[in-house]
Amino acid sequence: MMIIMKTTATPEEVKHVHERVKALELTPHQISGAERNVIGVVGDGRPVEATAFIRLPGVASVIPISKPYKLASREFYPENTLVPVGENVIGNGKPIIIGGPCAVESREQILESAQSVKDAGAHALRGGAFKPRTSPYSFQGMGEEGLKLLAEARDLTGLPIVTEVTAPELVPLVADYAEVLQIGARNMQNYALLKAVGQTQRTILLKRGMSATISDFLMAAEYILSKGNQNVILCERGIRTFETATRNTTDINAIPVLQAHTHLPVMLDPSHSTGHWEYVSALARSGIAAGADGIIVEVHPDPTQALSDGAQSLKPKRFKTLVKQVNAIAEALKVENISTNPLQ
Amino acid sequence: MMIIMKTTATPEEVKHVHERVKALELTPHQISGAERNVIGVVGDGRPVEATAFIRLPGVASVIPISKPYKLASREFYPENTLVPVGENVIGNGKPIIIGGPCAVESREQILESAQSVKDAGAHALRGGAFKPRTSPYSFQGMGEEGLKLLAEARDLTGLPIVTEVTAPELVPLVADYAEVLQIGARNMQNYALLKAVGQTQRTILLKRGMSATISDFLMAAEYILSKGNQNVILCERGIRTFETATRNTTDINAIPVLQAHTHLPVMLDPSHSTGHWEYVSALARSGIAAGADGIIVEVHPDPTQALSDGAQSLKPKRFKTLVKQVNAIAEALKVENISTNPLQ
Amino acid sequence: MMIIMKTTATPEEVKHVHERVKALELTPHQISGAERNVIGVVGDGRPVEATAFIRLPGVASVIPISKPYKLASREFYPENTLVPVGENVIGNGKPIIIGGPCAVESREQILESAQSVKDAGAHALRGGAFKPRTSPYSFQGMGEEGLKLLAEARDLTGLPIVTEVTAPELVPLVADYAEVLQIGARNMQNYALLKAVGQTQRTILLKRGMSATISDFLMAAEYILSKGNQNVILCERGIRTFETATRNTTDINAIPVLQAHTHLPVMLDPSHSTGHWEYVSALARSGIAAGADGIIVEVHPDPTQALSDGAQSLKPKRFKTLVKQVNAIAEALKVENISTNPLQ
Amino acid sequence: MMIIMKTTATPEEVKHVHERVKALELTPHQISGAERNVIGVVGDGRPVEATAFIRLPGVASVIPISKPYKLASREFYPENTLVPVGENVIGNGKPIIIGGPCAVESREQILESAQSVKDAGAHALRGGAFKPRTSPYSFQGMGEEGLKLLAEARDLTGLPIVTEVTAPELVPLVADYAEVLQIGARNMQNYALLKAVGQTQRTILLKRGMSATISDFLMAAEYILSKGNQNVILCERGIRTFETATRNTTDINAIPVLQAHTHLPVMLDPSHSTGHWEYVSALARSGIAAGADGIIVEVHPDPTQALSDGAQSLKPKRFKTLVKQVNAIAEALKVENISTNPLQ
Repeated sequence: MMIIMKTTATPEEVKHVHERVKALELTPHQISGAERNVIGVVGDGRPVEATAFIRLPGVASVIPISKPYKLASREFYPENTLVPVGENVIGNGKPIIIGGPCAVESREQILESAQSVKDAGAHALRGGAFKPRTSPYSFQGMGEEGLKLLAEARDLTGLPIVTEVTAPELVPLVADYAEVLQIGARNMQNYALLKAVGQTQRTILLKRGMSATISDFLMAAEYILSKGNQNVILCERGIRTFETATRNTTDINAIPVLQAHTHLPVMLDPSHSTGHWEYVSALARSGIAAGADGIIVEVHPDPTQALSDGAQSLKPKRFKTLVKQVNAIAEALKVENISTNPLQ
Repeated sequence: MMIIMKTTATPEEVKHVHERVKALELTPHQISGAERNVIGVVGDGRPVEATAFIRLPGVASVIPISKPYKLASREFYPENTLVPVGENVIGNGKPIIIGGPCAVESREQILESAQSVKDAGAHALRGGAFKPRTSPYSFQGMGEEGLKLLAEARDLTGLPIVTEVTAPELVPLVADYAEVLQIGARNMQNYALLKAVGQTQRTILLKRGMSATISDFLMAAEYILSKGNQNVILCERGIRTFETATRNTTDINAIPVLQAHTHLPVMLDPSHSTGHWEYVSALARSGIAAGADGIIVEVHPDPTQALSDGAQSLKPKRFKTLVKQVNAIAEALKVENISTNPLQ
Repeated sequence: MMIIMKTTATPEEVKHVHERVKALELTPHQISGAERNVIGVVGDGRPVEATAFIRLPGVASVIPISKPYKLASREFYPENTLVPVGENVIGNGKPIIIGGPCAVESREQILESAQSVKDAGAHALRGGAFKPRTSPYSFQGMGEEGLKLLAEARDLTGLPIVTEVTAPELVPLVADYAEVLQIGARNMQNYALLKAVGQTQRTILLKRGMSATISDFLMAAEYILSKGNQNVILCERGIRTFETATRNTTDINAIPVLQAHTHLPVMLDPSHSTGHWEYVSALARSGIAAGADGIIVEVHPDPTQALSDGAQSLKPKRFKTLVKQVNAIAEALKVENISTNPLQ
Repeated sequence: MMIIMKTTATPEEVKHVHERVKALELTPHQISGAERNVIGVVGDGRPVEATAFIRLPGVASVIPISKPYKLASREFYPENTLVPVGENVIGNGKPIIIGGPCAVESREQILESAQSVKDAGAHALRGGAFKPRTSPYSFQGMGEEGLKLLAEARDLTGLPIVTEVTAPELVPLVADYAEVLQIGARNMQNYALLKAVGQTQRTILLKRGMSATISDFLMAAEYILSKGNQNVILCERGIRTFETATRNTTDINAIPVLQAHTHLPVMLDPSHSTGHWEYVSALARSGIAAGADGIIVEVHPDPTQALSDGAQSLKPKRFKTLVKQVNAIAEALKVENISTNPLQ
């Protein structure tokens, strides 16, 4: 931690800061510049809150040096963590593709979706049974009935199931049915929920919150990791900005930034991050080209009849083409021997 | 709902849209412009999803006309709703001031805070017992022990208690101790939690999410209202923008915009929306001048020792001055006979 | 400047950084922490670019300590700078109010506007003759003819003139007619223009760019100051965020933040920062309550006929009420003895 | 244009709007919904300002239907426009790669840069002679001397020159030396400058402003096109958001969105949009995979000695690898027969 003094700070104020640092059993290092003094604070690795110093007289600001996350950090664990998605793993250079409808709507719809996702060559089936919707008047999902239909779809196709969990008390139920539990963007900082899924050993697909910084995102992962569950996949799904031409702004930079800072696998959701089916294939390609370990895409047998997210869902035929495109990009990267870690 | 056709749409595509509108038992109105066709869709008030039309051939975009919220809308209920805060109400033109520490830290700290908040002339005591923290390694609150200390502070001062609830299963417990249940910014779209507090009759202080639009914010209130609880206070606490000089960007515009669009009372939290104690008083004044029904301010007897939010907490003396300033502004508005509803 | 080493940096890499620091005739200060090394760089006040170190092996990041602006800084000049606006000055605690139409549209329109602005008790007349418009097909202003009409309005009312200048070659012409030259938000980083107005002694009303940080804003002022013109007024006019309920998001925090960091006077433009006349009065009040030195408001005798910004212009009657409200707030602050500098 | 009436609007207010529409020689179309009235306004293609109606009693809002740009629109011109970059063209499916330093710093530096850019297989040389810098104390470029060195680099390598122009009066000078004139992000809405370059026939590389929407961006292009210059290349270079891990947030969505809405070629600048050399290659790949027509990359023979943008500049060797990666991606797209227009 660095304590930056004001240019107008008096010697007494500087001295008082030193005393305060020592009182906390830390060591102050004085740096006397041309314009101002800076005091470096050295400890034993314990976290120190900036609060302890920011209010002292003469202090201009306090700058943390250490990253706030640890278990999620690539400095802590330099290798790629491989996370199971059914019988596959994600993180080993082979892109994992998840497809399926926003919500389970009916037996016919989910079985048809599952079959087409399977036929396209994808690795897992997504589908929501508990839906967090902006409006209390919108379709809220089929609940446990939806989970049963997902299980039936798995029996039919062999695809593992990815589905969202929205409250701590639902975790055991959803974990009974699904291989991968999704935490939605709106719940990324629902800490009670993060702790609950951290106590399972299910794979967790953690979506980035709409206004979460990359540091916030890794701190949310840290909540899960710190409870003992290492099976966390990070998923960029667009952030909120001033641009209204698309539903969200895909933070494509986040793909290599995350790959540099964490050992956890990173996916892109090109459906939510654009909100328009027309742009989904281009974004899926760009995600893989940027180094993402996989993509998760909304697919619906008849998007015009979808109860949610119809505008951004692909029809099965276009999804099949997308899978081919994505694999072609991945193949090109392999030939060029490109690592997903931008620092290698 | 308006369906905007592409300039290149064929007559058959236009006709197909008409048929689709009628198939849903709605009435299409054709408007043939110089450049393109627009089809107005008239119904009987039932919500219609844009999805039903956005994917049809020749359609450029679909524009909703109705607001997505109803119970929260001033068009639905034109008068100001008065909401209880202990024995006071908020929404009648007299500013309600809530003060207290970020978190309950000890018996001494909360009783001293309560006394100074009372002495300054505020109307309620805030203090967190369950704390949602970005880091799993930060202080997470005292839990039920904290609630008991808050109750003791109420006994001492007569001030009603405002405290946060972070999970559906905690609602009954927290509602046992507190007059006002706060939903934090990170949980604004935690729908399980919104439904749970909607089933109580406690006053709910709903904080705006960091990236929530005003429409999203009112939809979150709609969740609570639609469950039968009308006692909702909206609280602007800053949104996330590119500016880093402050912790958040206070969306002061939101005060009059909310007053125009909803009948619910509106507060400002100048502490979280700035993140620096130096700016809190200026912001508290500006909130009241803009028409806010009240403010909620972090106050701590010794901010340098605070376990959270020390940088933005006021000392009791400065808080007392703030209360005087805020009341002076409110008095000036009263003399000038200024309504909080900007449309009056 | 602080050089933060990676946790994995080798002793050789640390040594190499020290050598590089010394090669630039600067002094390195080593701080060896539990996790990583930090190297403080001390110089003689000359600016040092982070670039010199960021690419060295083992370096994680480089953190500047000094502020990038100097002449604009309150540390450099602690008193409030008083800037002339006609025969008044801004910055001495008495709010300066500027009113008038977005653009000069006709002789009748500008003279009627000027008279009503004068009657309301405002201190200067605004009106654009050269208009930067998003569309090349929109009204681009009357040019020099507009300037002549503004001069006629000044002769009629005695109000000094505030008008925009949009290109370096227009500076001498506009300076001939107007007391205050406005730099619009879109030109805040048009450095050729900033240098040109810096070479005059006219008062410059510098509007904040839509995506300018407060630091960027002060750097733009620094361009003008560094050319020798100290008469700079800073004007917050809203920044671009995700919120679409208003045209921009008023960064009301910027008022006290600027007052803390600079000696230059600070205004608020409640018209552009909201974009809706309904919210302009509330925002004008909030700006003054937050400590702004003045406001600039769009006023039009018949907003429904305005060639630009009709939606956000006030009618003369409402503007007159606004002036009364603003003065009532200012009076209340004076009674409470509130300084505009939040640090006092 | 659609005029949305309030739910509380009276029949007289509706009638008054109809009269106003007719007075402007436009045709009103009444749509009477369950909750409110909407009035469609049909004209003859002339632009109508929303201002004419927004202030009328009973009007809730006015929604434009037509896009504000015309010449830039793909509806206006459905084919891809091919724009010259020296002897190559951009827009025909073969990616154009521009490389070179941020600024011309010396004869040796620019000649060495040019040679390495040429050797890597790029198509043009970039380098700034007039530099818009945030600080007045930073290196401002070599001016005309820099242009002469660029010309020498062209003579040496045959590469066409891309360089920035920062003021209208510099346009003839810069156009004398360079094949491609760049308009920087900070000048995207400097309309005097846009008009000046619109009067040349040079190729214009127009960078998106940091807070410009895609619509604003196309309106800036419209300024150039409307002056008679059709040779415009659009360049996404990152927008400003809350994320601080990178210098800007690359709006990768903008690539397919622009391809859908305009016939002009679209480039990506992965250097400014990330600000860190570590992420530049990943972003270059993602841009091409998303359908960009080309990329522009900062390359410097010794980034640690660069006078600007050292942190984001690639060394020649890494740039050469990037060119290979980009070409491999382009090849994969060709095999899959992927159009850059997402709507095909």
